[in-house]
Parts: sequence; structure tokens; C-alpha cells
Amino acid sequence: MRTETDFLGDLDLPDDALYGIHSLRAVENFPDQTPFFIEWYKAVGIVKLACYHTYGKFKSAASQNYNINNLPFSFIDDDILDALIDSSQKVSGGAYFDHFVVPAVQGGAGTSINMNVNEIIANVSLLHLKDSIGNYDRVDPFEQANVFQSTNDVIPTALTVAAMHLLNDLEDAINNLRNVVENREGEYRNVLRQGYTQMQAAVPSTYDRLFSSYNNALSRDWWRVSKCSERIKEVNIGGGAIGTGISIPRFFIMTVIKELQHLTGLPITRGENMGDSTSNMDRFVEVHATLKAHAVNLEKMVNDIRILGSDLFADRELMLPKRQVGSSIMPGKINPVIPEFVISAVHKVYSNDQLISSLCGQGCLDLNAYLPMIGHALLDSLKLLTSCNDTLRKHLFTDLTIQTVKESTHPVYLNPSVTTALSPYIGYHQAAKLAKVMKDNSLSIFEANNKTKIIDADKLNELMKPEALIRQGYSLNDIK
Amino acid sequence: MRTETDFLGDLDLPDDALYGIHSLRAVENFPDQTPFFIEWYKAVGIVKLACYHTYGKFKSAASQNYNINNLPFSFIDDDILDALIDSSQKVSGGAYFDHFVVPAVQGGAGTSINMNVNEIIANVSLLHLKDSIGNYDRVDPFEQANVFQSTNDVIPTALTVAAMHLLNDLEDAINNLRNVVENREGEYRNVLRQGYTQMQAAVPSTYDRLFSSYNNALSRDWWRVSKCSERIKEVNIGGGAIGTGISIPRFFIMTVIKELQHLTGLPITRGENMGDSTSNMDRFVEVHATLKAHAVNLEKMVNDIRILGSDLFADRELMLPKRQVGSSIMPGKINPVIPEFVISAVHKVYSNDQLISSLCGQGCLDLNAYLPMIGHALLDSLKLLTSCNDTLRKHLFTDLTIQTVKESTHPVYLNPSVTTALSPYIGYHQAAKLAKVMKDNSLSIFEANNKTKIIDADKLNELMKPEALIRQGYSLNDIK
Amino acid sequence: MRTETDFLGDLDLPDDALYGIHSLRAVENFPDQTPFFIEWYKAVGIVKLACYHTYGKFKSAASQNYNINNLPFSFIDDDILDALIDSSQKVSGGAYFDHFVVPAVQGGAGTSINMNVNEIIANVSLLHLKDSIGNYDRVDPFEQANVFQSTNDVIPTALTVAAMHLLNDLEDAINNLRNVVENREGEYRNVLRQGYTQMQAAVPSTYDRLFSSYNNALSRDWWRVSKCSERIKEVNIGGGAIGTGISIPRFFIMTVIKELQHLTGLPITRGENMGDSTSNMDRFVEVHATLKAHAVNLEKMVNDIRILGSDLFADRELMLPKRQVGSSIMPGKINPVIPEFVISAVHKVYSNDQLISSLCGQGCLDLNAYLPMIGHALLDSLKLLTSCNDTLRKHLFTDLTIQTVKESTHPVYLNPSVTTALSPYIGYHQAAKLAKVMKDNSLSIFEANNKTKIIDADKLNELMKPEALIRQGYSLNDIK
Amino acid sequence: MRTETDFLGDLDLPDDALYGIHSLRAVENFPDQTPFFIEWYKAVGIVKLACYHTYGKFKSAASQNYNINNLPFSFIDDDILDALIDSSQKVSGGAYFDHFVVPAVQGGAGTSINMNVNEIIANVSLLHLKDSIGNYDRVDPFEQANVFQSTNDVIPTALTVAAMHLLNDLEDAINNLRNVVENREGEYRNVLRQGYTQMQAAVPSTYDRLFSSYNNALSRDWWRVSKCSERIKEVNIGGGAIGTGISIPRFFIMTVIKELQHLTGLPITRGENMGDSTSNMDRFVEVHATLKAHAVNLEKMVNDIRILGSDLFADRELMLPKRQVGSSIMPGKINPVIPEFVISAVHKVYSNDQLISSLCGQGCLDLNAYLPMIGHALLDSLKLLTSCNDTLRKHLFTDLTIQTVKESTHPVYLNPSVTTALSPYIGYHQAAKLAKVMKDNSLSIFEANNKTKIIDADKLNELMKPEALIRQGYSLNDIK
Repeated sequence: MRTETDFLGDLDLPDDALYGIHSLRAVENFPDQTPFFIEWYKAVGIVKLACYHTYGKFKSAASQNYNINNLPFSFIDDDILDALIDSSQKVSGGAYFDHFVVPAVQGGAGTSINMNVNEIIANVSLLHLKDSIGNYDRVDPFEQANVFQSTNDVIPTALTVAAMHLLNDLEDAINNLRNVVENREGEYRNVLRQGYTQMQAAVPSTYDRLFSSYNNALSRDWWRVSKCSERIKEVNIGGGAIGTGISIPRFFIMTVIKELQHLTGLPITRGENMGDSTSNMDRFVEVHATLKAHAVNLEKMVNDIRILGSDLFADRELMLPKRQVGSSIMPGKINPVIPEFVISAVHKVYSNDQLISSLCGQGCLDLNAYLPMIGHALLDSLKLLTSCNDTLRKHLFTDLTIQTVKESTHPVYLNPSVTTALSPYIGYHQAAKLAKVMKDNSLSIFEANNKTKIIDADKLNELMKPEALIRQGYSLNDIK
Repeated sequence: MRTETDFLGDLDLPDDALYGIHSLRAVENFPDQTPFFIEWYKAVGIVKLACYHTYGKFKSAASQNYNINNLPFSFIDDDILDALIDSSQKVSGGAYFDHFVVPAVQGGAGTSINMNVNEIIANVSLLHLKDSIGNYDRVDPFEQANVFQSTNDVIPTALTVAAMHLLNDLEDAINNLRNVVENREGEYRNVLRQGYTQMQAAVPSTYDRLFSSYNNALSRDWWRVSKCSERIKEVNIGGGAIGTGISIPRFFIMTVIKELQHLTGLPITRGENMGDSTSNMDRFVEVHATLKAHAVNLEKMVNDIRILGSDLFADRELMLPKRQVGSSIMPGKINPVIPEFVISAVHKVYSNDQLISSLCGQGCLDLNAYLPMIGHALLDSLKLLTSCNDTLRKHLFTDLTIQTVKESTHPVYLNPSVTTALSPYIGYHQAAKLAKVMKDNSLSIFEANNKTKIIDADKLNELMKPEALIRQGYSLNDIK
Repeated sequence: MRTETDFLGDLDLPDDALYGIHSLRAVENFPDQTPFFIEWYKAVGIVKLACYHTYGKFKSAASQNYNINNLPFSFIDDDILDALIDSSQKVSGGAYFDHFVVPAVQGGAGTSINMNVNEIIANVSLLHLKDSIGNYDRVDPFEQANVFQSTNDVIPTALTVAAMHLLNDLEDAINNLRNVVENREGEYRNVLRQGYTQMQAAVPSTYDRLFSSYNNALSRDWWRVSKCSERIKEVNIGGGAIGTGISIPRFFIMTVIKELQHLTGLPITRGENMGDSTSNMDRFVEVHATLKAHAVNLEKMVNDIRILGSDLFADRELMLPKRQVGSSIMPGKINPVIPEFVISAVHKVYSNDQLISSLCGQGCLDLNAYLPMIGHALLDSLKLLTSCNDTLRKHLFTDLTIQTVKESTHPVYLNPSVTTALSPYIGYHQAAKLAKVMKDNSLSIFEANNKTKIIDADKLNELMKPEALIRQGYSLNDIK
Repeated sequence: MRTETDFLGDLDLPDDALYGIHSLRAVENFPDQTPFFIEWYKAVGIVKLACYHTYGKFKSAASQNYNINNLPFSFIDDDILDALIDSSQKVSGGAYFDHFVVPAVQGGAGTSINMNVNEIIANVSLLHLKDSIGNYDRVDPFEQANVFQSTNDVIPTALTVAAMHLLNDLEDAINNLRNVVENREGEYRNVLRQGYTQMQAAVPSTYDRLFSSYNNALSRDWWRVSKCSERIKEVNIGGGAIGTGISIPRFFIMTVIKELQHLTGLPITRGENMGDSTSNMDRFVEVHATLKAHAVNLEKMVNDIRILGSDLFADRELMLPKRQVGSSIMPGKINPVIPEFVISAVHKVYSNDQLISSLCGQGCLDLNAYLPMIGHALLDSLKLLTSCNDTLRKHLFTDLTIQTVKESTHPVYLNPSVTTALSPYIGYHQAAKLAKVMKDNSLSIFEANNKTKIIDADKLNELMKPEALIRQGYSLNDIK
């Protein structure tokens, strides 16, 4: 056991704990068990790495231009700076995450996140320097690990980095799914399908049109998600406590962003108005809302697929791939578990959306204190949606098949609404007459026409082809 | 009383009712009293006007190229077409709205909206033709008023038209508010303000920085809202029941959009995939979510202003304009009613957001049946937000004032955190010493420095100027 | 035109306007058009009526025990009191509602509602006294119409009265629906139905079991809603601005509740801690949440019914009553408009639930400023849910029918899962063997058994009776 | 590595994995990382323990009354039954939780939860029998571990058990907090406080009244939460797949509940209508909504406390206990982290509420497939709220203090609204005169009265005592 002290008194810590007293205070104050996301932890590491690199450049530049011994403050020693760089690099790779003990639900605008990482970095640096854990006189979590940083700039900047990485993943996942959906669209070109509106049979359609409506929706989602990074790219690192950059060198403020761009490969930029980026959270509302539009498309799509492939469905032609045993007591039962997973996940996304916007509206003056909860919900949705796209692609759309029916016997031709397609050619009243014969005698349109000879049989065959039924409108040339 | 008949039997209607039996059925089935928005009603009128104009052009084109008497169907007579044009034009101006009896909350994907307007147009056309109300043999709500139209294309297209008009209003309202906020920013340039994070005093700031954070947020909102029309501009008029355009002339499909553009002056385009635009509603989710980002900014801003101008606030310098008597029993009490109105309204917008996305996710196969509720909530939010911006501009920001305090006695200089600004110049430890003297003796930084002579008095005055306190960072040149 | 004046200056009003300057200020400040609910307006009238009656009793009691001319204040004259009583009685019946000009969305914790009614009552009283509108020297909206009242006690008390009345309506509506559902349960006792879990065929069930699950849910809802009045019955009338009753006679505080009970017939009680009832709004959260549980049951129920009666459904036996034309272009199409109405309405209830709880959590110190929006949403949900129950009863469940199939040919007997019922009698493996024969040869269980003779045919018939299939478990006596 | 097989093929598993192929399929299908709650896992263990105990009793009873060798099925051997009992007991204590690999967000109505536990129990039983993992011929996850059980009865029953335990914890936590709040109420009896409505100064109040409003709210919450178990106590264990109890012995159905009551000590009862409890989820909506009412009270309370104790607040008398360092760069800054934690947590509860009700409304026919997500959100809220109450008690209310001001100089006496208390004694006009003198000269009521002699000084002192200012109303006896 070692003991650490803060203004409230002493606390004991395990000897090998890389976290320190400020992390323990948070654990005491915030008795939550929701795991903090490693993606955000790693991003805090990389932001600090960028800060230490920038610090090094500032020190060099200062040394070249000034006698740094005459400055009113002293620079961090090079060996310590090297240790900080090394430690933060490891954190940015996910190392020591088991020493990150602060839960996801917390008070304090992210101070506990920042301090837990500062303590880890300080202690890892001490070990790097062959010194002992807890010897903060040499490497201090505040003065060294947090140099030129503030919770209020590090934590939202790191959230942005984490979110941008996950947005890239999601973008890929959507596009990969879209590709597979497009394959299904190509595969089932002009395969007839009964159209349904409000769960009642409507006019005819085809499976490729259905898949193309998903393809279009996913294309929009892809585009939308690809635009999200643009919406959050302005970060406030360098802004300090409330975005004024108070007591931070201008060199640092100007350079740290480039460093972070370089390290992350992300198109991050400096916020023009850092007070604005510190206090206003609308960018996260906007980005999450975009995710919600995608979630809504997923829900619509899997709801359709689930019904089309279910025992409920009257005209089942679509076969869902079987993925796992569906019942612990009904042998052979298979359930649409992938759609159900997606529906569960997107409803969680909807609830995250409410959580984010309700907290983003509660900022007060120069800061929004709820960034930890907001960020957690945002990353949660990003991860869930990527999971949804991945599992839909791998476990649903890749092996989904349509059992094609011999065309002329397709149920579409038994539904009197198919006569709608003839009205431009034979007029509304003749078409209605044919519909009535179909209905009264349960005949297909072909059989009914054989009986009534209302239209030439070849012409009927031509007009009843799927591609004719779904082409956008008719021309007078066709019917004259 | 006159009597009308449908497949369910007869219903009596007042002699002068311009609505008909299908509207009455809806009133019976949907016992709700929420008023339908006139903006949507007018937009249905203009969409139908575009359809009748296009029909006229189709008829001319057909007459020029074909012997239209040989076609399998007959065209609507010119006098009836003129009557339809005239009636729908009146509807598009809001006429006869008292005959629109269908409530906002309804089943049926908008069929009742469409039929109520069809019945009004048919009856107004009959009156125009000096015929009598209800003589549908001459002008039929289905065959003439609804010609080449479907609920599934008319109603979402009209919603889009209504939403685009209201988006334009909102865009203007935001920009007008932003202008006034920008005036306040200019007026209170470099006027000191205590910064607060998490409701605790932090480092110093200024009022122009606060207003500039609102200005920036509103600028983003303006830009966002201006992009919304782009997101919904694709309409499906001409697509018919499920977007296949079945039994509709291609000439009509291609021409009606141009006609609608011309009549509305809006940058409407034809959906490339009309099945997609009929069944997927993500565009409304996205647009409303954008509105929510704006709502969140408004909430943050008015929450600040409400606290800053309240009796609660320790450092009150901001004075809200007085707008109305605040109490029925406490004479002279004035409340922040404009911020409260805005908070009430934006929370309604948040709840509309949930309503819209939960229903948009519930589309089934070729249609989303909940368009009436979705559209109502969207228009509601647009109108509420425009109201918020208008009243904030007129009744809050225009007459809002800051009572400037004699600078050197500003409370900012009493708060030890102001010494943060000195640490680059005198080092952290000297700054901390000064802070301690301030705190222990309740002295201003100037008084404490007089006592301790830690820094040159002129240098201190210079560094304590508001513009120095908030400039982004320091340069080594300043301190060497 | 007449002119009225307040601390902000003059405003012109129409000569015959019963509202006054304070209402007009609100209209200017709150540019919203959502109609205020008449139920709340009427309830404000009855609360004020109770106050005036109580005032009269206080005056009598004072006159009997004291020389009221020696008191430091003077009582309202009897003729004016009579006029106030008469006017408020009319308001409580809904009169003059067209002079209530304040919109539903507003700032100010209800002051504008209170003042609009105060102004109406003052002016109507003046007319009653043959005096002229606006002569507030004689009857003042504050001093007389609002005597011993505060917005903070009148408006929530009135909301409670309105809500309790609507809760009674809802309670009746639920029970009436429940009765009709129970009739369907009785009518279709032991009528076979394929059970479905996760949209896949499961073990057999019956229609009466389905209806009984709705009946049970509605019974719970009935009970729940009947308990709601209990949860909100404590009102704070007499508590004044913050529940301390400052400057209000104790006689009045103690008596006004009894008067209100008497006038409304509702089991209202006095809040023990009026500060608590003024500042905490959890009772409305709880009541609305109860409504949401009911809404969820309605959604589940109508979703089932909609699918069971749709063209989508493979085993359609349930026939929805036809309610209105379902399409403006597909003749004969009928849609499940009643379920769709209910789903739209319950989603609005869900969004009201979010609105209510988010605003109820935003109370500040001695008051919640958002009562107008909270109350509006609560009353909206109550009215919507009553509408849902009414239309479900009248337009869906009363005429809903099940087309019974000849029992032995019911699809249930074609589904191999029906063999589950035999496993206690013939063992799992024999049952599985029978299931395989059914599946491989597409035979019913009876046909498969004829072929395999696995179980005695009479025994099979007995075990396959619907009542046997759904009875809760088997006894060893049955199988030994 | 060992290999297991299902209808889809083979999968490799680590040799010592206690989970099996069905768990692995789930992990593959549901790529989510949200940890499943151990409380639910343990409850599945205890439900299964009750089932095995009941099975044992059924076997004994059967052996006594029948020749069990003649029955068409064979009983599980006693040694296996003992092993199942032993294993499930360990699971009910939380053992082997690291072999529970299924994530919280999943499809399939809980089948994967059930199967993961079944596989663990089967394998642990095999180890218990000195057999090897994976030898399911001897102990089968379906036939033995799941005997007489179905996912559809085990999983919701276990959720109920877990929720009831957590409800008990929450009930205690609320009451413990309430006790501490009550202590503060007692401690600060009649300590003056400026009342505030809508953030503006209103009439006077006291701190005990503020605390008593929290005490009352928490009392209601305690009562509410204590009633929740009653609302969910009906469980459907024994109901099988859809609540019909098909192929389950009646003895088992009747006995298993008593066994479960006994093992858990909870007042669980058997659902009268097991189909209803399987398909309708309103009970969870209702219970969670009750939690939300509590959450709203917490938010209101901590919002107040946060403002009252902040630097923002003009009349700060309330001192929050300091809990942790508040800034990584502003030394000495302390933030209201406990209120912020609570606000973050309750907003998560609000979002869980939306999640739960939106999914509960999506049940389809005989089952709701979303139980895993619903249950996760419910347990999450229960745990979060218990954490909130605990940390509020320990870290906020226990050490919260009011800095009492010398009474006669309290700001309340400087606010002219305090004259309201005099109007019954000296009339409205004299009171207004005194108020004007106070305001014009910035005098306290005592000073102003010294100057004006409007009321006898002793009488004034008496009426200005805190207990007089907040007593409910006045009596004519006092003023005559």
C-alpha cells in the first residue's frame, strides 16, 4: 500500500496502482459501473501525446530564440518529456486501460477522466525513469502530465478524435452493407413482388425495387455519415479552461492542432472561437441526429425483411439465412435474430439521441458539465451502428435469397389491382370489368382475359411483364 | 341537408358543406381535435394546381399529336379543368379552410387529407360551373379532382412544399436574431465578465465573447437550416401509389415537377427513385434533427441569459427587458417570460423529434402510414422555432443591456483565479503567492500587488486589461 | 377601441374585448398558435368560483365575530362579490372562451392564464353590474378577481380539476372498450389460432386467449387509471405564491378546499405541505407515466389486430370492420385506419411523456415555471387516449369477427410443432417421429397418425381439442 | 480445443470453456460489447434452481403414486439432478460469470441468455459428475438443464427476481437519503431563506421548508418504489413458450412458484393469465415510469442544491461538502460533482424510459422479442438510482451546512416583498408605502419602519420572525 494526499486528506492505494488519489475520489463519488469506452481513453492518450510533442517544439524554439534560464518559469526536463511522450504513446495504444478506474457516468465535466489519465501517465513516466510510482515531486499529474492542458480542452478534443475514428469505421460498414444490398438488387432484377401499403395489397412491384429503396437509403446514410466529421472537426485544444487560452503560449495553441492532425491522420482543425466550441454542444446533437436518420433507415429495412421472411407473411418468397437455434423448447424453430438485434440496437440509439440532446441543452455559461455522459452516448451509438451494419451484411444480406415463383402463376396476377396497369390501354371501365371477373371467379388476369377477351393476349403478356409493370408511367405512343 | 353515399352507406351533410362523405367518415373514425395546419392545406392546393396545369398541357400535347377521340380514355372537359384550376388556386391561398374538417391526428397515411381537399375542390368547382354541391357525376372527387394523383404522392409532396416555405421563414428569423445578437456583441466589446464553469467562478472573460458564442451558434444554425431544403427537395409527385407511376402518363410525371417549381418558386426536384421517397422517411428525421440542434442552442443561450439577468445571480450586470407583469399577487415582480417561453417551446421540439423518428422507423414495405403525424410534428416545430427566434429578437435581445461596472472595481479582480493570467510573466509560484494574499485579505489583485510589489504596477494594469485577459495565449516576446 | 395601461405603457383593445392589457402582452410575447384546452379554462373558472364562495363565507364569519369596519382592510362589496360568482360560474361552463387569447405554449408559470381569466371575470362582472368594460377601479382583475389567490395556487389546482375530470372519462372509456373485448373473448372461446413468437409459428393457441390477454391488459389499465386521481388529489389552493399562505386568512385556506370538493364533486384534498406541491411536479410525471403504460398496451393490441386482419397475414381469420375508403386511386382498397390512428396517437402520448418529465425535472427552488406546457401535454394525452378507446370500441372491436375454419383442417394441425402437446403421452421421441412424418409429407397430424398409428386416434382427437391444447399443463393421471 | 456442432455446422471452443456452441453463435450474431448485468445472470441461476428442486419433488410424487418406469418418458437420474442443483446454486451466487459471453444487446427474446446459462450449467454439472465438458449425451443443455423450462418463462421470471432485489436496494437507499435530508430539515428549522420563483425573489421562506419539500418528495418516492414489486410480482414460470404450459406437468406449474418464493424470499406469485404476462410488458413500463418520477425529484433537488451552493448564487448560505479537486488547471476550484453525477444519471434514466416503452409497445402476438434490451435498461436504471441516492446521502447531504446569517440583517428583510406579510395587519396601502420607503432608500424593513413608524416596532419584530412568515395564513384574531 502507498498513501496519497489531497486537500481532503489521505487515501491508501495498492502499491502497483498506476492511478492515484484523484481517480479514487472519483470512484468514491460516482458509484457507477458502466465501463468507460477504451476508444475515448486511447484518444486522450493521443491528444496528450500531441501536447507533449508540441511542448518539445516550443521548448526548442524558445531555446533557439531566448535564454530560457531567464524566463519566469522553467521548462520540463528533456528526460521527463521523453518519458511523458513514451507513456502517452502507450496509452494511445490502449495500454494500462485496467488502471483507468473512473466509470462512464460521472460528474465533473471530465476532470476525473483527465486526472485518471494524468495519473497513469505520471506513474508510467516515473517507472520509465526508473523512479517509483507516486513520486509526483518528480513527475506531477498536474504540472507535467497536464502541462498547457485543461480538462475543458483535452476531453472534448479527445472525444472528437475517438468519434472521428468510429465515424470512419461506420462509414465503411455502411458502404460494405450497401454493396451487398446492391448485389441482391442486381440478382433479383424484375422479380415480381406484391406491393403493400398499410399492410394491404397494393399495385405490383419487384424485389429489385425494394432492394433499390434500401440501397438508396444506405447511400444517403453513407453520404451523411461521411459528412459528420466535417461537422465536428473544429477542436478547442489549446483553449484552456474556457477557450481564452489564458496562460498558454500562442506557439503551443497554433502548433498543437497540426501535431494532432499528423498523429491521428484526421482532418482536425482549430476552432475559430474556442469559447464557442467549449460551451456549445450543438455539433454533437447534429452528428448524433444524423446517426439517428441512419438508424431509422435500418429499422425500416429490417422490419420489412423480418416480415417478408417470417411465417406470418402470406406471400413468403424471401428466405432469411438461419443463424442460430431459435428456441430452447421448440425444436427446429428459427427466429429473425439479426433483425431483432438491429431493432434493439437502433432503439438504444434513439434513446441515446434523447440523452444527448437533453444534456447538450443544459450547458451553463462557459461550459457544459455533462460532456462525459454526452460523449459516452455518442460513442455507444457509433459502435452499435457499426455492429448493426456488420452483422446485417455478414449474417443477413449476404445469404438472403428470394424463392422465385413461376412468373405467370405469381400471386400478383391474382390480385385484381393488377388491372390498374391496363387502364391507359383499355380505359378504366374495361379494366374494372376484368377486375370484377378476376375477383368473382378467383381467376388470374390471364384466365379472366381468356374468358372475356377484353384485350389481345399477346398485348396482355407484354403489359404484364415485370419491367412493364414498374416502369415509370406510360406514353401515348404505347397506347394509341 | 344533402345525402352522400359510399360503400358503407349514406350520411347526411349540411347543404352548404364543401366537404363530403369521405371527410365525415374520417371525423367519425378519428375523434381528435388537434387543428390541422393551414400551411399544409394550402400546399395540397398548390400541388393539385400544378397537377391540373400539367393535365392541361398533357391534353394539348395529346391533341396536337393524336386523335384524342380514338384513345381508350376520355379527357376532362376544358370547362371542368378551368374550374379545378380556379378552385385549387383558391385552396392554395387558404380559402375554404373552415371546410377542412379532418383533424391532425389520423389514420390512413393522408387519404383523409387528400379526400377532404378533393371534396372541397370538386364542390367549389361545381359552384364555379353554376352546378350544385354534391353533383359528383359532373365533377368527381376521385376521377377529376384527384386525376393522375395518389394520396401517396400528393400528401408528402405538399408536406415538402409547406416545410420548405416554413424553413425559409425560419432561416430569416434566425438570421434576424443573429444580427441583433451581433449588435450586442459589438456594443459590449471587451466589457469584463466573470467566467463560470460548472456554476463556479473560473478565469475572466468578457460579454462580447459570450455574445460571440451565441452569434457563432446561430450562424451555424442559419447555415444548417439553409441546407435543410436541399435534404428534402426530392418529391414523389407523379409516382402514384408506390412510386412506380403505374397508369400515369410519362409526360405528366416529367412535367408536373417543373410546374410545381414554377408555382412555388421552390427548388423542388423529382425523386430519382420514387419508391424510395415513398417508403423511406429518413429525410424528415434528418431535417428535424437539424432543427433540434438549433433548439439546443436556443435552450443553452436563454438559460444563460435567464440566469445572468435574474435575482439569483451574484454578479448581475445584465438587464433583461421587462415584458409583462410577473405576478398576480407580488406587485412589481417581473419574470424572464421570454426565456421560459423559449424553453417550453424547445422542449416541445425535442418531444416532436422523438415522435418523428419513432414513427419514421415504423414504415412498412412500400409506405409509411404515419405521414400525417410526422408532418404535423415537423410543421409544429418549424413554427415554434420561428416564433422563438422572433420573440427573442424583438422582446429580449434588442433591448437587453449590460450595466457596466467601473472597470478596476470589477469583481473579476477580486477573484484569485485572475492571477492565472500572470503565471507566464512571473511564474506559477509568484502568481500563487499573490492569489493567497488576495484571498486571505479579500483584496483585489491591484491592492494585493500594491502590498506585495510582486509585479510592476503598470505591467499589471496592462495585463489586466480585458483585451489582454481574453486574447488567445501569450508570446515569449511578451514575457522575455 | 379602448385603451388600457400597465407599467410598460398603453395598448389599444377592441371595445368589446373581455380580455385586457395583460392578455395582450402575453399574445405579443408568446407568438404561438396552439389552442389552450377549454377543459383547463373551465377548471380555472370553477376554482375561482370556489374562492369567491369561500370569500363570502369568510366575510360573513368575520362580520359575525368582528366589527369589520375596524379591520385594517376593507371587504369586497356584496354586489361585486355576486358578480364575481356569477361570472366565474359562467367561465366554469366554458362561456367567453373566445376571449381567452393566451396560447398553450407560453412563459410565465401560468400568470398569463390567470390574468386572462381575471380580466374576463372582471369585465363580465362589470357588465353584470351594468358598468362598462375596463372600469377596473370598480372591479379590478388583481384585487377583486384574484382575491386571496395566486397564479401559483390557482393554475395547478385548476389543472388538477381538469385532469381528474378527464381521468374519469378515460376510466369509463377503457372499461367500455374492455367490455367489448371481453365479449369477443366469450364469442370466440376455444377457437383455434396458430401461436406466433418472434413472427414465427410456435405452439397452438386460441382466439379467446388472445382476447383475454387484451382484456387483462385493459383491466390493469382501468385499475391504474382509476388510481391516478389519488396520486394528484392534493392541491395547493390557499398556499399563495410559494405555499406559505402569506397574507391569506387561515379560514380561507381551510375552507376553500371543501368548497371546491363540493362544486366539482371530486375527491380533492389540501396538500399537507403546500411548498412541496408548488415546487415538485412528480405527481404529474407519475400520472402521465401510468397513461403511457396504457398507451403501450394499446399499441401492442392494435399492432396485433392490424397484422392479423391484413393482407400480409398468412393465416388471416380475423376480419376488421371496414371504416372508410382506403385509397384515392386503388378502388376497393381498405386500410386499418383505426389501428393507425391509435398508433399515431399513442406515439404522441410517448412524446408528451418525454416533454412532461423533462420539464418537471427543471423546476427551480420554489416553483416550476413550465406548468403551462406540462399541463397542456397531460391534458392532450388524456383526450387522445379517451379518443383511442372510444374509436377502438365503436369502430373496431364491436364489429370485429373471426372467420372460423372447419376445426380439423385448421392450419395449426399442419404445423409439426403441434406434436409438442403429445410428448407427455407418447414421449419426446415418438412425438418427434410423428412431427417428421408431418413435415416430410406435408400431412396434418391426423393424417400422419393414420399412416403411422403412433397414438390411438380417439386419444389424439381428444388431445387435439383446443381446450386440451391450451389448458395449463398436464397431470400424470392423464397419461399413466 | 473441443468442437461442438449444431444444425449450422461445427465450431471450435477452448477446452475449458463452460459455454458452448449456442453461446458462440450469439456472440457472432450480436457483435455488441455492452456487459450483461450479473444480477440478471444470478437470477437465471436461482430460477433454474427452483425448477430443478421442483423437478425433484415432481419425481418423488410421481414415484409414490405411479410406476414411473411405465410412463412414456423417463425421469432425469438423481445424480444428474443433484449436479444440476449444485451448478445452478453456484450460478445463482455469481459463479462462472466470466463464461457468460452473450452481450446485453442481442436479438432473440432471451434465447441466448437462457442457452448460455444452460450450457454453463450442463458443463459444470458434467464436471461435478467427474465427466468431461461437452459430453452433452449425459447432461444436455436442452433436455436436462432446460427441463420443463422455456426462454419465454425463465428469462422474464429471472428479470423479475433481479428487479425485485434491486427495488429493495433502491427502497432502502431512498429511505436512508430521506433520513439524512430530514436531519437537515430539523437542524435548520426556521432558518430564513429568500424564496425564489422563476429565478426572481419572491416572498420569504426558510431552509427547513425547502428540505421538507425534498423530504416529502423522497417519502413519496419511497412509497412508490415500495409498491413497484407489487406491480411486477406475477411471473410466468411454468407457462412454457406462450403461457399455455403445453407439455409441462401441472404439478410443476403449481409448485415451482412456491419453490422460487422460498429460495428468493420475494413475494412472487403465479400469473393468472400466463399468456398475458408473456406477451404484455406494461408492468415494466409502469415500474420504470415510477422510477422516472423519482428521478425527476432527484433532478429538481440537486439542481436547487447546486445553484444554492454555487458561486453563481447571490445569497449563498448553503455550503456543499467539497469532494474532489475540480480543475486540472485552476487550483482550488471545487465543483458540484455530486449533483452533476446525479443529473447525468437521471438523464440516462429518462432515456432508458423511452427505450423501455418504445420496445414494450412493439410486442407481436404471443411474445415481446425485445425483453433483453428492456430488462437491461430497467436494471441499469435501478442501479443508477441506487447509486444516486447513496452518493447524495454520503457525499452531499450528510455534510451539507447552512451558514446562518445574523437574523435581523438577513437579505430577506431588505427585499420589499417582505411587506406582503404585513398587509393583513396594516392594509395593502400602508404596506405598499413601507415597501416604497425600503426600495427608494435601500433600507431594511426595520429601518424603514423606524423612519416611518407605520407599525409598532415590537409587533413588527413579532411578525418578522421566520415562524410567523411561513405559518399557513393568518387569523382575524391576530389582527383585530
